[in-house]
Amino acid sequence: MDAAEFRKRGKEMVDYVADYLEKIDKRQVFPDVEPGYLRPLIPDCAPQDPESFEDVFKDIEKIIMPGVTHWHSPYFFAYFPAASSFPALLADMLCGGIGCVGFSWAASPACTELETVMLDWLGKMINLPEEFLAGKHSQGGGVIQGSASEATLISLLAARTKTIRRVQSEKPELTEADIMGRLVAYASDQFCATLGTTPCCSFDKLLELGPICNKENIWMHIDAAYAGSAFICPEFRHLLNGVEFADSFNFNPHKWLLVNFDCSAMWVKKRSDLTGAFKLEPLYLQHHHQESGLVTDYRHWQIPLGRRFRSLKLWFVLRMYGVTGLQEHIRKHVRLSHQFEHLVLQDERFETCAEVVLGLVCFRLKGSNELNKALLKSITEAKKIHLVPCHLREKFVLRFAICSRTVESTHIKFAWQHISQLATDLLKTWEQKHHQQ
Amino acid sequence: MDAAEFRKRGKEMVDYVADYLEKIDKRQVFPDVEPGYLRPLIPDCAPQDPESFEDVFKDIEKIIMPGVTHWHSPYFFAYFPAASSFPALLADMLCGGIGCVGFSWAASPACTELETVMLDWLGKMINLPEEFLAGKHSQGGGVIQGSASEATLISLLAARTKTIRRVQSEKPELTEADIMGRLVAYASDQFCATLGTTPCCSFDKLLELGPICNKENIWMHIDAAYAGSAFICPEFRHLLNGVEFADSFNFNPHKWLLVNFDCSAMWVKKRSDLTGAFKLEPLYLQHHHQESGLVTDYRHWQIPLGRRFRSLKLWFVLRMYGVTGLQEHIRKHVRLSHQFEHLVLQDERFETCAEVVLGLVCFRLKGSNELNKALLKSITEAKKIHLVPCHLREKFVLRFAICSRTVESTHIKFAWQHISQLATDLLKTWEQKHHQQ
Repeated sequence: MDAAEFRKRGKEMVDYVADYLEKIDKRQVFPDVEPGYLRPLIPDCAPQDPESFEDVFKDIEKIIMPGVTHWHSPYFFAYFPAASSFPALLADMLCGGIGCVGFSWAASPACTELETVMLDWLGKMINLPEEFLAGKHSQGGGVIQGSASEATLISLLAARTKTIRRVQSEKPELTEADIMGRLVAYASDQFCATLGTTPCCSFDKLLELGPICNKENIWMHIDAAYAGSAFICPEFRHLLNGVEFADSFNFNPHKWLLVNFDCSAMWVKKRSDLTGAFKLEPLYLQHHHQESGLVTDYRHWQIPLGRRFRSLKLWFVLRMYGVTGLQEHIRKHVRLSHQFEHLVLQDERFETCAEVVLGLVCFRLKGSNELNKALLKSITEAKKIHLVPCHLREKFVLRFAICSRTVESTHIKFAWQHISQLATDLLKTWEQKHHQQ
Repeated sequence: MDAAEFRKRGKEMVDYVADYLEKIDKRQVFPDVEPGYLRPLIPDCAPQDPESFEDVFKDIEKIIMPGVTHWHSPYFFAYFPAASSFPALLADMLCGGIGCVGFSWAASPACTELETVMLDWLGKMINLPEEFLAGKHSQGGGVIQGSASEATLISLLAARTKTIRRVQSEKPELTEADIMGRLVAYASDQFCATLGTTPCCSFDKLLELGPICNKENIWMHIDAAYAGSAFICPEFRHLLNGVEFADSFNFNPHKWLLVNFDCSAMWVKKRSDLTGAFKLEPLYLQHHHQESGLVTDYRHWQIPLGRRFRSLKLWFVLRMYGVTGLQEHIRKHVRLSHQFEHLVLQDERFETCAEVVLGLVCFRLKGSNELNKALLKSITEAKKIHLVPCHLREKFVLRFAICSRTVESTHIKFAWQHISQLATDLLKTWEQKHHQQ
């Protein structure tokens, strides 16, 4: 395929993607396929000779789409949102076209420098303390990771390296293994200091945890993977109070800030804590600017060596939505979750199971876990909407997360009427069954 | 931006990317900018109100392109290739449009199943032993990681978990920390068993290493990040002999197989070695198929939780190039590296420094390291071509890597004439300087 054919096929693909997203509400949100469905549909091995674009293209609807869970359907209420927006898709096309690998400043200066500045923009939007921003002369700064798990792992490794070095300087008689065996990582049952946990979107008390960590010389990492995007709204910013005690902070614009996966934003107060743990300097990656101290080589901030030009997505989305556009998006989702909460609370057969702070409602039928498992089963099997459960203090709970960019009040009403009807049907058979027993 | 505007802007972006790649040889391969160039060009913080696409679009040439190192220029001979092709770009557009997060089978069955089958296709193309393929009833299988570093880290962690468990079952009196302190990872100065090292593309002797690892119960991980793609050509497959002794194997189609970054292919003989180390089962990620043993939940195979639909890129590229098309690509690059080697060897001022096996030529001026540093400096400053150095046994060496998909014999000749002329100029001043001293 040459550039001329790419122009033609690329435009067809743009239309396909636009059609897909425009009419996604017409597709069944959760697929019908059974495990192993795909293998029999395609050949055993790669073709020797090239196939045409048409051949591949027609297989998208035939082979791929029947097995897709449609995360951007307005009937998708599972997990947490996966961000998606047209500006981000455009930026990703550009990112692919440029196709640079930005492991060092010299490997593509724009890739590194735009990332540093975008993380400053984003940090300012959530009013992060200035120590976390790169600015012009700071010790801190931000980086894009692939996921919150990577940010947590990197914090753990950096904290470990830092602590081992400190203890070794105090007690040179100890080996690294001696020290390793005594290191402790503190976490709750949702891990590290978290703002907006996955099961129920609860918030750890940073203002209590923070001073203890600082006093005891404990690295504090805060994970706000989902909730972090909400802090761009002044009315939610108080949830981040206490971040000033942290060593590292992370949230995922790829969850709730309309930046397509992957874009996990991480900040540290001291970038030397990361580069001290991960620095790697083979000659083929050195360049004459690095000794000046003026440049950032992001490979020292992460596990992989290679990295894509992901800050383009942030740049496109922040500019084409503006802060107010993104605030509207967050506020709409929070409004819709309260709408759903309200519907649940009006039905005395149901209860909510955690405070609704942002875009997640945890709810259940009053009654046994078995009853609620049966309700989820009937929701899952009907495939009109899609949601997943969680456990909260031994209770089996249904999670209703506001996910799609295009979800509206009508979809929430539909979802509730559907759940409510399934509950009515279920309770009828359930009572008959228990009556017979 | 709505779907209608995306149709318009998406098509403009397709044309921009096509233009960029079609005329990339007209751009200076390495940028002129100095560290910190970008920050003064853009505002201090994100705009409150949305900006138009036109505003953002015109800044691409104004702000981004002046700081881009053009990895796909036919004058780019640095590092190793970053793969890029039009079918991969099309697949990435589709991947972004679908925008699913495939951490479990249920989160998007097509995403998981296509990946498993594509890794089987790819494994068959390089004639991997059947134990590494998922097939229908195997214990092994493949997964797409983001980078070879992640594949290596995952192998290390899986090996560590496996070894600790084995030792603990043999000697229950030992703590995990006791065992950790005694674990040993063996590596050369290029790390783990490597096929095609980065400095000089050398090959470890798997047929010697493998049996020792197996006898001593040592996990053997083979990293063929760059070289692996070449094994699709029968004439290079012998370099992989001995892989049958390995526990895990990895190579990067995103380097040399025309699949845009990121797509790092990793296979294991026993998938339970990975899932045993990384398994994570909160209720919100469970689904009713997982207990059947029929499904793969790739989150257990990797560090991050989330994952994109990267197998689409493999599917598009393998089908639209066919095996023969990809073999032609590899063979062209190897032919061009031998052309360059031949030019170097014809000039008695120069020497090559390692056997040219695939697409990399290591060469230098006969003489001191300082002389060769001066040559590299003049190449870097002229900015007609771009390459990076390496150290081989104390010697400062220039690496000439065949990188671009569109590089041809004329570019190689141009590069050599340019280097040769710079050497002539340099040697003149160098001799004068040394004469004066």
